[in-house]
Amino acid sequence: MIGSAIAGQVAIAGIGQTEFGKGLGPSERELACMAVDAALADADIEPGEIDGLACYTMEATPDFELLRSMGFGPLHWFAQVAHGGGAGPGTVGQAAMAVATGQCRAAVIWRARKRSAAASRVWAQTSPVLSDHWKWSRPSGLLRPADEVAMLTRRYMHEHGDVSDALCEIALALRAYACRNPLATMHGKPMTRDDYYASRMIADPLRLFDNCLETDGAVALVLVPAQRAKAAGQCPVVIEAFAQGMAPGHQQMADFHRADPLSSCGRVAAEKLWSMTPLGPGDVDVAQIYDAFSPLLLFSLEAYGFTPKGTAAQFITEGGIRLDGKLPCNTAGGSLSEAYLHGLNHVTEAVRQLRGSAATQVADARVALVTGCDVTPNGALLLRRDA
Amino acid sequence: MIGSAIAGQVAIAGIGQTEFGKGLGPSERELACMAVDAALADADIEPGEIDGLACYTMEATPDFELLRSMGFGPLHWFAQVAHGGGAGPGTVGQAAMAVATGQCRAAVIWRARKRSAAASRVWAQTSPVLSDHWKWSRPSGLLRPADEVAMLTRRYMHEHGDVSDALCEIALALRAYACRNPLATMHGKPMTRDDYYASRMIADPLRLFDNCLETDGAVALVLVPAQRAKAAGQCPVVIEAFAQGMAPGHQQMADFHRADPLSSCGRVAAEKLWSMTPLGPGDVDVAQIYDAFSPLLLFSLEAYGFTPKGTAAQFITEGGIRLDGKLPCNTAGGSLSEAYLHGLNHVTEAVRQLRGSAATQVADARVALVTGCDVTPNGALLLRRDA
Repeated sequence: MIGSAIAGQVAIAGIGQTEFGKGLGPSERELACMAVDAALADADIEPGEIDGLACYTMEATPDFELLRSMGFGPLHWFAQVAHGGGAGPGTVGQAAMAVATGQCRAAVIWRARKRSAAASRVWAQTSPVLSDHWKWSRPSGLLRPADEVAMLTRRYMHEHGDVSDALCEIALALRAYACRNPLATMHGKPMTRDDYYASRMIADPLRLFDNCLETDGAVALVLVPAQRAKAAGQCPVVIEAFAQGMAPGHQQMADFHRADPLSSCGRVAAEKLWSMTPLGPGDVDVAQIYDAFSPLLLFSLEAYGFTPKGTAAQFITEGGIRLDGKLPCNTAGGSLSEAYLHGLNHVTEAVRQLRGSAATQVADARVALVTGCDVTPNGALLLRRDA
Repeated sequence: MIGSAIAGQVAIAGIGQTEFGKGLGPSERELACMAVDAALADADIEPGEIDGLACYTMEATPDFELLRSMGFGPLHWFAQVAHGGGAGPGTVGQAAMAVATGQCRAAVIWRARKRSAAASRVWAQTSPVLSDHWKWSRPSGLLRPADEVAMLTRRYMHEHGDVSDALCEIALALRAYACRNPLATMHGKPMTRDDYYASRMIADPLRLFDNCLETDGAVALVLVPAQRAKAAGQCPVVIEAFAQGMAPGHQQMADFHRADPLSSCGRVAAEKLWSMTPLGPGDVDVAQIYDAFSPLLLFSLEAYGFTPKGTAAQFITEGGIRLDGKLPCNTAGGSLSEAYLHGLNHVTEAVRQLRGSAATQVADARVALVTGCDVTPNGALLLRRDA
């Protein structure tokens, strides 16, 4: 059974989430339980049937606390994926492998954050002594992820020209999606081009609205064998392919060690993903692209083969990621305007699109791509409506 | 392909290790690279072919640093497993899933520790404020893993009678194996019954020699498709089955929340493992049982069905785990006398036994069991010689 053994075998049978926003009352653990509870209800599955659990290594709630709090059955499988915003598709992919190979019968994946509390910003807690890889970049002023992505964006602009208008259009497009999504943090807060350009510079060329939100909330997913989801009469959203990518010479987050710092981890995942399926970029109806910072959309659109190298800005300014564009992207508002949950909310939005239940629905969406952070070790999921 | 899809599909083609001992010179990262280098040579595989990596969440060396240091190819798969000494078989199992399903073509698993430095003993760094689950046990004096396992051992003795002689015999048997293993930390340091009983009490009833070593060193493994290992003419050691276990109500490390604190995570993994294979306990020729503390052998021998409940001590005192016993265990000296590497050295010893190259070789060993820490969330591997 060497080959792409997962294709079509595993369904995302349930999705759940909490309210998204600033300063929510429940603890991170309580938010996790609320989202999982909603996902179990959506999948119509009892907690005691869950015997697999996957999460980000950055998740603060220990798996055994979730097990006890939720009343899961004995767990027969558990694993974690590292690299923050790169981890989301990987957590789902690991669980898909476990369900497909029979290591567990039903798996939960979750991510909970109380991001609106400044204490959670680990990069603000720089040690006075740097003994690890950070010593190569922090003394040069690259303190925040935004600083590193800004430098990569400058490099991209050095090679392909100014992208300011594309970054603005990404922020506007995602805000427009959020304004149609009642559950988005930025629902009811429209943004204009003037608003965007009036916002303060965070790390040149990244303005405030090029950066993800700092939000509280949680999302969760339930995976079961596709046959089970079908037998239950659920609209089966199945995993068509899964891949991860980490490029040689990678340095968190920007690839300073390599001749081409833009030859990203995303390209590694993309190449592997397309090798695992007969489908290609032209088959994708809707994409949820990791967007902690707006330029990541430029990088990923090119890495996954939607636009030739150096042309993503034009694709975007011509409306390519809008609902009537060639590839509607981040249709719930994304990390810039829905919520920042390290990208796991991108998976739930992809499922809604394939179910036909999204707030901004892409007509007859049958294939959806979800990517992790392009510039970190990451992963990607290709989801398909199996009906 | 729902079912036990891994069986026989994945081979452990390479094993490697460093010197084991106290106060070794190389850094933890250097030790990791040395072990991986040895495993690659043993598997006769180029670093550039490696595209999968699995490790413990407790591993200090980031995966991307190992990638860069070793010259691995772009990675297409990576994952981690939590819970310290419970994680070892899980890391190998995740990688086996990835190789079997085609997510990667060759995976490395490693564990490196500089345990002999006291700074690595995280439980010695108790915070003055306990906000997590530790608040339930630390104020009662359960500060170290040894304290928790001692309490579970007392509970076992309350139910099944004194096991002091069995604990002594475990320490003596493992030391005898180490004295035949030139690479073991305790090689050349024989132990007598008097030595054992003269050693100081650490956490009643655990004496010094019931506790694992504090050592430096690293081990690594290379996994490839079984077909590839066969085609290369290597003695193929394949993964017959893999399982993980986490019991509802689990509390790190002892299960204080449950009616039966001895109804362990190990029993969950064992039940799943035997459900994934036609083989049973009677087919196992040699076992490598996680042994950070000697009583874990009692618990695991019963959990995996080698002895009825309450009889493991008798099995052991009658010589059951010696080379001429019914189930030779921890034949390289184990965590008590070879090295403490969170149990990943138990996997390499199992491979040596199935290759017929162990220092203390079990005649015609064809099936080997490796278990993770019985009392924490854990895992197990059943390995088989496929020739």
